[in-house]
Amino acid sequence: MRNFIIVGHKAATSPNFSLEDIPGTSGRLDILCRGITAAFVLSHGIRKDVWVYLVLLGGEVPKNICLKGETLRHLNPDERTTAALLKKALALEATSEWSMSTSGIFVRTGGLSRVLDDLKSVRMIYLREDGADIRSLGPGALAKDAAFILGDHTGMTPEEETMISEAGAEVVSLGPTSLHADHCVVLINNELDRIEKEESL
Amino acid sequence: MRNFIIVGHKAATSPNFSLEDIPGTSGRLDILCRGITAAFVLSHGIRKDVWVYLVLLGGEVPKNICLKGETLRHLNPDERTTAALLKKALALEATSEWSMSTSGIFVRTGGLSRVLDDLKSVRMIYLREDGADIRSLGPGALAKDAAFILGDHTGMTPEEETMISEAGAEVVSLGPTSLHADHCVVLINNELDRIEKEESL
Repeated sequence: MRNFIIVGHKAATSPNFSLEDIPGTSGRLDILCRGITAAFVLSHGIRKDVWVYLVLLGGEVPKNICLKGETLRHLNPDERTTAALLKKALALEATSEWSMSTSGIFVRTGGLSRVLDDLKSVRMIYLREDGADIRSLGPGALAKDAAFILGDHTGMTPEEETMISEAGAEVVSLGPTSLHADHCVVLINNELDRIEKEESL
Repeated sequence: MRNFIIVGHKAATSPNFSLEDIPGTSGRLDILCRGITAAFVLSHGIRKDVWVYLVLLGGEVPKNICLKGETLRHLNPDERTTAALLKKALALEATSEWSMSTSGIFVRTGGLSRVLDDLKSVRMIYLREDGADIRSLGPGALAKDAAFILGDHTGMTPEEETMISEAGAEVVSLGPTSLHADHCVVLINNELDRIEKEESL
């Protein structure tokens, strides 16, 4: 299973944003929407072996949204459709337990620490420019069950850096250029596709 | 210079599409919009060394749009802003010569053959699943001046395949999974970033 954790530091936790201006009204939920499509969307279908955890920190009470590939429905490759799905999830009354919004999409209250706690048995990899090159880890080094932690345009806070480090995450880089979260997700999926192919031969 | 050619077989050549439903009203211009942002957008800025050529085949008269990184303005990472820029370009009266719409964006009448002709002095690479692995080409093998040819969700027609082959394009693959054009662009940019870094050491 491939898990992607994407932290939206200003991302809306209420559905009161406009689909006509997602970047300007939702605390840059557009970044998370593109991360979601990068994680799931294939040329002909949806990746079933992916879960995406969003950490939305732009409201009074932080929220987590989890999207699970095996049951995910109604996801199209465009940004607006994805934002509409998140809007629906955010309109649900969130409690500390997961509630299902549409098929494969779940919401609860919680910040980054809860998600890290959920995934504590999984190999954690934090994407940062100064990490070890993902390609240098070698084919066997990336477990099939792994969680990849990505920030948004504002970068992680020192408290988050500590939390991620205490969760035992390795720091890994994708290349010499600083990229948006969704582009990072594309590169990780490609690396994992290649490793799975190699291991299946 | 990195050139990306993206063919939109049903893509609108008129500005009469809705920004509220880009996939449903524009002949999937959304695919091309995401290809554009994948080509240009960095975490903090725009890639200056990129040109994107769009081939729009969904109208009576085919059109080319060219976006040039060194002078490109008003491009944001979200899909809707990009679609609005294309809408402006398509509202211009296109002739067989390039006309500038907004800064760095140009439009003319023409199909794939005109773009291939413009780039005939450049190394051409056609992305297709059955090609040679891009990583097996080796660091020196990808010239800095290269043009990468990508299709949309419908794939190339036999006539286009012939045209591309006659233009001398090599067939290259990005990995074991069939991906959307924008994800392909992300992977190509990463490969070229790595090669440039290696060559600069």
